[in-house]
Amino acid sequence: MAPSSETAGTRGQAVRSVSVLGATGSVGQSTIDLICRNRDAFTVEALTAQTNVAALAEAARRTGARLAVIGDANLYDDLCAALAGTGIEAAAGPDAIVAAAAMPADCVVAAIVGAAGLAPTLEAARQGRRLALANKECLVSAGDVFMSTVADAGCELLPVDSEHSGALQALAGASAESIERITLTASGGPFRTWSLDELQHVTPEQALRHPNWSMGAKITIDSATLMNKGLELIEAYHLFPVTAEQLGAVVHPQSIIHCLVSYIDGSVMAQMACPDMRTPIALALSWPGRMAAPTQRLDLASIGQLSFEAPDEVRFPALKLARDALTRGATAPAILSAANEVAVEAFLSRRIGFLDIARNVADALEAAEKQGLIAPAANLGDVLEADSAGRRLAQSLLGRYV
Amino acid sequence: MAPSSETAGTRGQAVRSVSVLGATGSVGQSTIDLICRNRDAFTVEALTAQTNVAALAEAARRTGARLAVIGDANLYDDLCAALAGTGIEAAAGPDAIVAAAAMPADCVVAAIVGAAGLAPTLEAARQGRRLALANKECLVSAGDVFMSTVADAGCELLPVDSEHSGALQALAGASAESIERITLTASGGPFRTWSLDELQHVTPEQALRHPNWSMGAKITIDSATLMNKGLELIEAYHLFPVTAEQLGAVVHPQSIIHCLVSYIDGSVMAQMACPDMRTPIALALSWPGRMAAPTQRLDLASIGQLSFEAPDEVRFPALKLARDALTRGATAPAILSAANEVAVEAFLSRRIGFLDIARNVADALEAAEKQGLIAPAANLGDVLEADSAGRRLAQSLLGRYV
Repeated sequence: MAPSSETAGTRGQAVRSVSVLGATGSVGQSTIDLICRNRDAFTVEALTAQTNVAALAEAARRTGARLAVIGDANLYDDLCAALAGTGIEAAAGPDAIVAAAAMPADCVVAAIVGAAGLAPTLEAARQGRRLALANKECLVSAGDVFMSTVADAGCELLPVDSEHSGALQALAGASAESIERITLTASGGPFRTWSLDELQHVTPEQALRHPNWSMGAKITIDSATLMNKGLELIEAYHLFPVTAEQLGAVVHPQSIIHCLVSYIDGSVMAQMACPDMRTPIALALSWPGRMAAPTQRLDLASIGQLSFEAPDEVRFPALKLARDALTRGATAPAILSAANEVAVEAFLSRRIGFLDIARNVADALEAAEKQGLIAPAANLGDVLEADSAGRRLAQSLLGRYV
Repeated sequence: MAPSSETAGTRGQAVRSVSVLGATGSVGQSTIDLICRNRDAFTVEALTAQTNVAALAEAARRTGARLAVIGDANLYDDLCAALAGTGIEAAAGPDAIVAAAAMPADCVVAAIVGAAGLAPTLEAARQGRRLALANKECLVSAGDVFMSTVADAGCELLPVDSEHSGALQALAGASAESIERITLTASGGPFRTWSLDELQHVTPEQALRHPNWSMGAKITIDSATLMNKGLELIEAYHLFPVTAEQLGAVVHPQSIIHCLVSYIDGSVMAQMACPDMRTPIALALSWPGRMAAPTQRLDLASIGQLSFEAPDEVRFPALKLARDALTRGATAPAILSAANEVAVEAFLSRRIGFLDIARNVADALEAAEKQGLIAPAANLGDVLEADSAGRRLAQSLLGRYV
């Protein structure tokens, strides 16, 4: 069907053996759930977790995994005890997680959150089979390094989040010259209709109430500032054959449509689903086929209305910040992402206001530019250095907003 | 990309030479427009029209067609005069149209409206290359006969109307077992919110005002009764690998989304576009690639809202009538379609009321069943006989509704 193979994930072997990096988080647990509902279709190689021994051991038992790895080496004995008598191998420590990522598997689900996911996910990419990617930092902070690893290894990269999975489906392998635009949808967060003045006084409690998805604190704040959508634009840039100018976002409060791809013939393909991570995970495991997922079915007649509005970059400047960092390239996105983490933490601990989050990121990027810290990254070391610089700069500037 | 070839239109050779049956109608003229904007990409073999010599000759001159055929044999001399000095061959009469359909061409656009399109379109299918199908009767009335001709000839069948073209794109070659449901959208027509009592007094003038599309009188009335959507469900049944139970319709007054395909993983793919026939025509000419079409681009933020509601089968019983005819099978859809033509004409000439259209169709089907006229069709002759029976029965029953 597809005239080209330029788009991510067009090779489509059937997946059988699976490893899950970050098996006890939200994406990991959803993956385990799908695997357990399809025990005949999958075998599990390695499962990893950072600290949650009980959940890791349970997931390993339920799936009959060959290996379970706990990141915190102090918990090795606990893991061995929890797996006693199962025949499941246990390991511990950061190197053991990287080694688990390198184990042969038809598909590695890379669901470790944050910078901790970088090294293991890169290792999984080097393996050269299918990588179901839920870690954002690989594409946002380490995009160039990560994508050249993927290309060199011939790895089949499939995104595991709603928007990029939607894009993958709406693209269906289309050639670059047929694509006019990719538009990601944003819920608009809880403050979509608030004035600038009201935004000034937002509390962490208010910001943590996301209208459609139940997520962690960091990503919920990123949704409220729209930084999350900006980071996703950067991810989309690396995943799909489009320029930065061909990427956009539209606010869609119901979060039913996740992505829209506009074509040169006027046609727009949209991917929709009720919010449930099992839909994109199932796609990544079964692409280009599909496997059943026990999610709530979409009923447009009972939903009644889908609404759309242009994002307001005055009240929500983070989207433009991210787009500018993407255009600037080199380590600018890594610095943006790191500075944003610091700023969100500062907001959550009431050191700065809601609008200061974007200010802090903008100021950190400006300082980095002045100090010559925005430069091409040749390897993971360069990325981690930029990450540190972004954090340091954002931290040093926090006093400005008090 | 596609795991299976069960869906219509998955072969995808590049189209170069094109014939257009019905070149002076709405679909035909849109096709000519696209071809003229891409003169380097296409050569034109034959163009046909029923009576409009001037428009046919102009289209033939603009596209440099090899042959122009006028259906009305009395107009042969006029056509010759209009083409004098161009070197374009002229022909006339129904047999010449069928012969034009049989001429080798990479793609035949079959855009003759009504029962008159049956014989030439079947002939084009026998040719065994790509058939871009805009004629409804081939699938609605002659579905079984037509589809077995298509299969025997190895013809690549691509639908040219918004809903089925949308389905083709939303399916993207998906295998039958991954499809849960195909939902066509209906504008709901001008009487979407009217009560049964109000519907009783609808005038032809009121019914001819379609909210989103500018179309002929017959199809505009079919949109107002929802019979059009019912006929499209029958078409979809023949085009795509689904059962009648997997097909549905949802009312969507903005007519932006044309079709939704629901998958077993909870994902729903929707095809959208501003209403313009050049989008599905361009797709049929370039599938599985895409060619540029100069249509208005979709801007969801400025549209603001898309709304959806379940169709009301009490106020708009035609949808259920069509679905029941599909389930009954054999010649029931042919009789439904023929009876509906008679009923719509009777409504337009003020012989029966708006609600009597569906009553007349239902009564004609009931009478046909009683008289043993619903039977499998082995060939076009059987289909045409059922068509006549439907017309005769509907006509004979008109007196009931006065």
